[in-house]
Amino acid sequence: MFDAIEKLKEYVSYQSVSADSAYKEGMGQTRDFVAKMLGDLGLSVEIVDTQKHPIVMARRTGDPSWPHVVIYGHYDVQPVDPIELWETSPFEATIKGDRIYGRGTADNKGPQMAHIAAVAELLEEHPDVPLRLTFIIEGEEEIGSPSLLPLLVERKEELSEADMVLLSDTLSPTADQIAVTVGLRGIVEMEFELVGPKSDLHSGLHGGAVYNPLQAMAEICASLHTADNRVNISGFYDDVTDVEDWEREELAGLGTNIEAYAASVGVEALHPVTGYTPFEAIRYMPTLEFNGLWGGYTGEGSKTIVPAKATVKITCRLVGNQKPDVIGKLVSEALMKRVPQGLKGKVKLGHTGVPYLVVPPNRPNTPKDQSEILAKAYEATESAVTDVFGKKPLFLREGGSIPIIADVKRVTGLDSVMIGLFLPEDNLHAPNESMSLEVLKKGIQVSKRILKAVAGV
Amino acid sequence: MFDAIEKLKEYVSYQSVSADSAYKEGMGQTRDFVAKMLGDLGLSVEIVDTQKHPIVMARRTGDPSWPHVVIYGHYDVQPVDPIELWETSPFEATIKGDRIYGRGTADNKGPQMAHIAAVAELLEEHPDVPLRLTFIIEGEEEIGSPSLLPLLVERKEELSEADMVLLSDTLSPTADQIAVTVGLRGIVEMEFELVGPKSDLHSGLHGGAVYNPLQAMAEICASLHTADNRVNISGFYDDVTDVEDWEREELAGLGTNIEAYAASVGVEALHPVTGYTPFEAIRYMPTLEFNGLWGGYTGEGSKTIVPAKATVKITCRLVGNQKPDVIGKLVSEALMKRVPQGLKGKVKLGHTGVPYLVVPPNRPNTPKDQSEILAKAYEATESAVTDVFGKKPLFLREGGSIPIIADVKRVTGLDSVMIGLFLPEDNLHAPNESMSLEVLKKGIQVSKRILKAVAGV
Repeated sequence: MFDAIEKLKEYVSYQSVSADSAYKEGMGQTRDFVAKMLGDLGLSVEIVDTQKHPIVMARRTGDPSWPHVVIYGHYDVQPVDPIELWETSPFEATIKGDRIYGRGTADNKGPQMAHIAAVAELLEEHPDVPLRLTFIIEGEEEIGSPSLLPLLVERKEELSEADMVLLSDTLSPTADQIAVTVGLRGIVEMEFELVGPKSDLHSGLHGGAVYNPLQAMAEICASLHTADNRVNISGFYDDVTDVEDWEREELAGLGTNIEAYAASVGVEALHPVTGYTPFEAIRYMPTLEFNGLWGGYTGEGSKTIVPAKATVKITCRLVGNQKPDVIGKLVSEALMKRVPQGLKGKVKLGHTGVPYLVVPPNRPNTPKDQSEILAKAYEATESAVTDVFGKKPLFLREGGSIPIIADVKRVTGLDSVMIGLFLPEDNLHAPNESMSLEVLKKGIQVSKRILKAVAGV
Repeated sequence: MFDAIEKLKEYVSYQSVSADSAYKEGMGQTRDFVAKMLGDLGLSVEIVDTQKHPIVMARRTGDPSWPHVVIYGHYDVQPVDPIELWETSPFEATIKGDRIYGRGTADNKGPQMAHIAAVAELLEEHPDVPLRLTFIIEGEEEIGSPSLLPLLVERKEELSEADMVLLSDTLSPTADQIAVTVGLRGIVEMEFELVGPKSDLHSGLHGGAVYNPLQAMAEICASLHTADNRVNISGFYDDVTDVEDWEREELAGLGTNIEAYAASVGVEALHPVTGYTPFEAIRYMPTLEFNGLWGGYTGEGSKTIVPAKATVKITCRLVGNQKPDVIGKLVSEALMKRVPQGLKGKVKLGHTGVPYLVVPPNRPNTPKDQSEILAKAYEATESAVTDVFGKKPLFLREGGSIPIIADVKRVTGLDSVMIGLFLPEDNLHAPNESMSLEVLKKGIQVSKRILKAVAGV
């Protein structure tokens, strides 16, 4: 009998900080543990070499007519700093009440364990279940999954003939209210540099004669939004798709409170684009956000200079059919067009991610050609979550970006079922990360019901 | 016989870096040297204690009917870093061709020596010259002269009955074209902080709902100038005084070339306020300059955040009758009025300096009550420079700020005669500082003629 909690405790004990080369040995031990755990379930394990931390793939093959589910997870975790704020040892899983503490308990070893345990139970109960499985457990998620897209491309043929992806690496608002993520925003990053004089100038000797790059930068940045907080670039919204009524209804189910939200982030008023609530704006609308801006003297006291240059980091979050390359080009051109005489501009484009949207079955806008197996998985998710957690899940778009989900769709054509098994109080990426054991246990039941529904047993 | 060059070599050899406490001994040696040098001329020396580096005062007293000239200088110098770029030892004065190299040769030990040597020669030639003198040689100029205003206030009675101040701590454009500085811009510094959410927010989870402080900062800063580059704050220009035709004519005498100036600062176009040349704008117009601006993530790569706050450092250069306190209040109010809902603003005011303007005699706007002695000094300056340097000096306002000149005027009522004895190529505040020996020698002659004219000998 597979003991999910014992397995999770052992999983957490392996120190798999992918960002820090000091944890190379821990990464290897964690990988070995995952490989053995999946091998013990009767799956055939393959270790796929990558530039940094190999990917564990594990397959249950079978008749080509059997449904084929890809299960995604990652065995790497965030660094543990600041270590002094931890109340328990981060790599020694500790159970207190309903919660298990330790780095990776919630992101992603615990939620991932829900699927592994579900598979273990399913195979124990139905050794001959007509279901093909492919686990992809990567070790570079916390450093941006640089090897996953190459793997998808390399294994495109094999993966394309699967039916869907199952994963749990998203948030639910509470332990009672599970969220199923059906949309993610895309992203395009850029850095814009504005260069004026060849060096910082004495503002007494030159001030008033030379265009101050910080002034020009402020003028350019200020011109990028309209008064109703839309992005002031022609064509920016061309590929934004409509929001359906059912989506607004699901979102209303969150019971969100604008005042409480404003208080939680510490502001007295919010600033969504006109016509949208803050919660809608986060999920349904693209943004152009200034992530960092700097120029001139930023130390103590004052320095009377006209600075030589100014720089801004911008990310756009994208929705619907917006394409990062197209938006990156539009924004670059808008920036460059606004550079005044006497200054030189330069844009450097960074990472991109395509937005993702999947429509559950039986919605007015469900694609007519949606696969039966994906539809079954969504229906099973809804009924299982309702039964097990006691409340219908909400099918929600989220404002964040998980570019790999859209990459999977783009490369293999597969849609994902993303069940939120971590909660706001789980302290992801922070000290004292934990997961609710109740959520873990319920997550196993839900996962098992989804897999059974897909397999038809 | 006073040997100015030998004295300057010795003066430079004493290491008087006021900003660095490691040079405490050098500061004391330098002070002793100055005291002895002035004492040897027969002046009575007083060392005035200050918080950091005492001020050397030296007096030649006499009949109250004798004219009384205050001569200002500073015995401290800038740090020598980066030392590896010096071609000679900074504290070992080295003569190559017409130039003497070493820290402080141009700022201010050399130009100051022109006045000291002039006094030495004058007293040798005319031991009974009817002239009272008060040297004020401070040791904190390079750290902002914090003790000079208190000294002026403390010695107000004594100093107020003097007739004028003579100093050389300003720039001339070339060794042939001496500039006499008749105006300096004032200054008011401030820092404006704009605070949004209580911490940096994940731009996926919150982007689109919260007013980005960098966006608001850009919008506020962009609103502070009009399209013709005037400061867009009501009342800002109320106390700016007119520029006289004679001033524009003097400035035209500089023979400045806009293209050459643009090239020298490395820009393709300049950006003065409409209606003024760049050279006029620097001298005659106030500014609102962004010296530094920062917020959010400024490191390598990207960080997808809505930053918690943004900060900007602003200095306004002031002219005419603009008062730093009034302008500081106007700008603060303009900033605070522009803070949008959902953000909090805070302004911290910094140092201030009053603008300074003196009108030479025989100009249409010369004050009717201008002192005869000041008028004599200006007339002597014009004729001596014309004779000695071969070309009429230009009487110019400058764009920089020397708040102490306005403080002297404000506290004691004294105007200053500021003869530019350093040149653009002298590398002030930089490695390989030097001074032209030719300029030094001519400076001595000019100084002596001014003092003789004032004394009537």
